[in-house]
Amino acid sequence: MEFELIHRYLRRLDSGAGIILGVGDDCALIAPPPGRWLAVSLDTLVSGVHFAEHTPAYAVGWKALAVNLSDLAAMGAEPGFFTLGLTLPEADEGWLSGFAEGLFALAERERVPLVGGDLTRGPLAISIEVHGWVTPGKELRRRGAQPGDVLALTGPVGAAGLALRRLQAGVSAIPPGLRARLDCPEPRLRQGQALAGRAHAAIDVSDGVAQDLGHLLRASGVGARCELGRLPLAPEVAAHVAATGDWSLPLAAGDDYELVVALPALTAAELCAELGLTAFGEVTAAPGVAWIAPDGREYRPDRGGFDHFAP
Amino acid sequence: MEFELIHRYLRRLDSGAGIILGVGDDCALIAPPPGRWLAVSLDTLVSGVHFAEHTPAYAVGWKALAVNLSDLAAMGAEPGFFTLGLTLPEADEGWLSGFAEGLFALAERERVPLVGGDLTRGPLAISIEVHGWVTPGKELRRRGAQPGDVLALTGPVGAAGLALRRLQAGVSAIPPGLRARLDCPEPRLRQGQALAGRAHAAIDVSDGVAQDLGHLLRASGVGARCELGRLPLAPEVAAHVAATGDWSLPLAAGDDYELVVALPALTAAELCAELGLTAFGEVTAAPGVAWIAPDGREYRPDRGGFDHFAP
Repeated sequence: MEFELIHRYLRRLDSGAGIILGVGDDCALIAPPPGRWLAVSLDTLVSGVHFAEHTPAYAVGWKALAVNLSDLAAMGAEPGFFTLGLTLPEADEGWLSGFAEGLFALAERERVPLVGGDLTRGPLAISIEVHGWVTPGKELRRRGAQPGDVLALTGPVGAAGLALRRLQAGVSAIPPGLRARLDCPEPRLRQGQALAGRAHAAIDVSDGVAQDLGHLLRASGVGARCELGRLPLAPEVAAHVAATGDWSLPLAAGDDYELVVALPALTAAELCAELGLTAFGEVTAAPGVAWIAPDGREYRPDRGGFDHFAP
Repeated sequence: MEFELIHRYLRRLDSGAGIILGVGDDCALIAPPPGRWLAVSLDTLVSGVHFAEHTPAYAVGWKALAVNLSDLAAMGAEPGFFTLGLTLPEADEGWLSGFAEGLFALAERERVPLVGGDLTRGPLAISIEVHGWVTPGKELRRRGAQPGDVLALTGPVGAAGLALRRLQAGVSAIPPGLRARLDCPEPRLRQGQALAGRAHAAIDVSDGVAQDLGHLLRASGVGARCELGRLPLAPEVAAHVAATGDWSLPLAAGDDYELVVALPALTAAELCAELGLTAFGEVTAAPGVAWIAPDGREYRPDRGGFDHFAP
């Protein structure tokens, strides 16, 4: 049964450039492109923790791959291939079929083959490892931001969090564009690759821009001064902030999977124009982050972002 | 909390040859050794499915890495590094500390760095991806066994299954050697690497020798004639078979993590002597497996091995 299910739903798109051996042996085999570094990232999504129990299977499949590809994007890496560890409570073929549709919709669009993995019985969870390639010295690390750098985002923050809040409040009519930000995030692969060797540092926003920017700044040994009024926001998020004065949604809700990048001051304007980035702050030599509200006063975020083991 | 836990227990042994960047960025970065292929395998262990709920944390850590290294062994690959996705119901530092002890005891012995991963909240489960390197053309695939090849095992089968049966029956005095076969299996890395380019095919025994040998034979388009009396057995397993006449334990209980290999007839005796292998059968052109009992009659195994989604 286990092998039939793998064969029927998951053995698809398992070949491609450099893939010597895909699904079906003890290991997959890959011929690395000469002169490049391998980038790897493993992320696990657990039902009821990373996605609500009744999330459509399609969205679970898409998102599980998207959040991993987002890590490659944040490194400026080109996607190579991925592996999947899927744990299912029962052999629910309807669910598995929807999951595979979402997963392969993104995998096929980005031409990232699934080369192997594991299907087991247990509480619903998905582990994916993505593998990509970067040119040595051009990778985007968290460390590397310099005083004077411009901080920019590849897209709006807070929309995934707003969709989640509305879902949790039982709101049924959520605009599809807002819902898509939660269910089917877009990994910023093209921007990440275009910034490789050109940005000083990057991170993807999974736990909220306040927390993830903090990681980047601490790794770089610097601080920042940011303007809340320049943060890119979806219209619904802008309306929420205007109505409540509460910035925690764009700052700390997480799940956005945009990239925060530190750009050299000299080329920042050009890079923002070329790649559709929005500048929202500046790196400072002094540590810590000052968030300046539109009225000019400093805003202090309440919480730092998502922590799986917060007391 | 999440980051403190990772830092305290899991950020250890994250550097080594070729590791450009370990734990702590969006991806780990590795410089592949020139001219070799990358071998990858991802396996998930779920509490209550792959190991009993009260399994010591040390054993869970050891075994999670061991079963993955076993896949590299079965490919004839040299271990490179690994990633870890750990899902924990709560921040239980006692458990996490024991888990890390077991995990790193094996990782340090085999010099396999942990380069990255993910710690999340959820039902206890461990996903590990191992990465290794093989010389092109020398890898051990499942496909490749030829009629006339000698089938051999790297060590005894059935002991892990017997230990599990006794545990499940509430037996408290299990010989430590038998218990170790269940809790802390030994990946046969040295034998696998020594057989690279010299054996025709290999697989590791995770689901029982009958089922896993079946995978190897079907992938190779051949069959086999095997003698039960030549299967290597631990003394307790031999005693169990002698007392009951039931061969399902060594054939189908699984969890042994020995390698089944198909050796060229000409060099089989030499390879068995050099590497401590035990020959137990011969590859035939006709498909299917005949298991011959010590009395000369054919034995028909009842079940094929472990299936996560058996009806």
